[in-house]
Amino acid sequence: MKEYSHTYFLTAGECDAESRMPMPLIVSRLIEVATEHANAWGVGYSRLKESGQAWVLSRISVEMMEYPHVNEEYAITTWVESYNRHFSERNFVITAGGEEVGYARSVWMVIDTARRTLCDISQLSYISENVSERRSPMTPITRLTPVSARRSESYTFGYIDVDSNRHVNSVSYIKLLMNKWSLDFYDRHRIARLEMAYIKECLCGMTVNVLIDDSNPLDCTAEIEAGGTGYCRARIVFAESEYRAGLNDCNSNNNN
Amino acid sequence: MKEYSHTYFLTAGECDAESRMPMPLIVSRLIEVATEHANAWGVGYSRLKESGQAWVLSRISVEMMEYPHVNEEYAITTWVESYNRHFSERNFVITAGGEEVGYARSVWMVIDTARRTLCDISQLSYISENVSERRSPMTPITRLTPVSARRSESYTFGYIDVDSNRHVNSVSYIKLLMNKWSLDFYDRHRIARLEMAYIKECLCGMTVNVLIDDSNPLDCTAEIEAGGTGYCRARIVFAESEYRAGLNDCNSNNNN
Repeated sequence: MKEYSHTYFLTAGECDAESRMPMPLIVSRLIEVATEHANAWGVGYSRLKESGQAWVLSRISVEMMEYPHVNEEYAITTWVESYNRHFSERNFVITAGGEEVGYARSVWMVIDTARRTLCDISQLSYISENVSERRSPMTPITRLTPVSARRSESYTFGYIDVDSNRHVNSVSYIKLLMNKWSLDFYDRHRIARLEMAYIKECLCGMTVNVLIDDSNPLDCTAEIEAGGTGYCRARIVFAESEYRAGLNDCNSNNNN
Repeated sequence: MKEYSHTYFLTAGECDAESRMPMPLIVSRLIEVATEHANAWGVGYSRLKESGQAWVLSRISVEMMEYPHVNEEYAITTWVESYNRHFSERNFVITAGGEEVGYARSVWMVIDTARRTLCDISQLSYISENVSERRSPMTPITRLTPVSARRSESYTFGYIDVDSNRHVNSVSYIKLLMNKWSLDFYDRHRIARLEMAYIKECLCGMTVNVLIDDSNPLDCTAEIEAGGTGYCRARIVFAESEYRAGLNDCNSNNNN
């Protein structure tokens, strides 16, 4: 099965302040669908684990033309588009209301969990057997360089930021970055493109600096760093998008 | 339909550092199932909204004997157990592996959204017609009084904490409180009982003090306050619970 799809329903309680599907939930769902696809092959995780190896997300980029809205069904389809000795590229399309509303590209690698080194994946037959011919129309991932911060704030990762891998969750970095813009800004803009580069894993209790370069307010870069080491870099491209209360209002908690 | 159930699957990426179902996800699911039940009646929200009213969560208490684990199915069943002029009590049971693993009790009220006053719900026929005979075996909700803090820390709510109601999400308060204990503590304890009392809604950008009384380290109380006003109170009862790496390990992100 070279392509895998999962259909979801966007509940009221999941929506953001503008009643859209929030970007952190989009990325959670992409990772979930990738995991399900690998589980469906019945090989990926357990075979790697026996040999002390694990798949790690290295890059993810998401482009949303439109966001699924409350009480709407949306589907995510994924496939592996290419791979080489060290990296595998898994791409996605997000559909809602019969339309393609978003795309994503992700890059994964296999590490030796004890030695923390990159493994050669060219010998993994289940990848070569499952590479799809499908080509994503999305603009390729760009290279993210260190950020010259125009503003900076510190943050200490807590228990809630950590997942079962015992380090900060890929999605927690996105939430941390998104919190650096105001509700008022999000009422007038939506994220058109998000690019994340994961360099090194943060741990629970660690204090980091969040550096933002918003000299171009619609095309910003960001970095999460501590002690001169970059842990994660991002690019966030915003598009104008007016929120009108009531028009696309949703009803989380307004129940009995 | 006096009882309503929804079955879910706990994915790897949803698990906490101890590979359990996290308490914030449990409360999200309880609110979701409550919303679905009200939607299934086809009346609750839209009828209220036309008259400028909304359901608001006032209290929620959760008691977990065991937590659903990764790749396990769990179900949540809900019913309205009683109501009076101002409050409706909706209760829940959580089952996994054919066993009852947790219970929850919640109290909801209807407010006039413009005037922010309590409404009389005794005339809402769809409630009286749907009150169940079922009785929850869970210990009733206790009264939470102001907290004498042994420790205190400030926090500013950001964009990610707010939902489509345009104020801080009920679950965000729980995440904020849970972050005040360390990963190490959670490796040795699980939450046996959580009680939340929502008093007043916080807004995005607001700075609050998180007050914790952990003089009894296994039965703590907490309060979120600003300028002398209590916005939310909590009681967290912990039970000892040893985390053993590998034994209940799960595999979020370890995919391709």
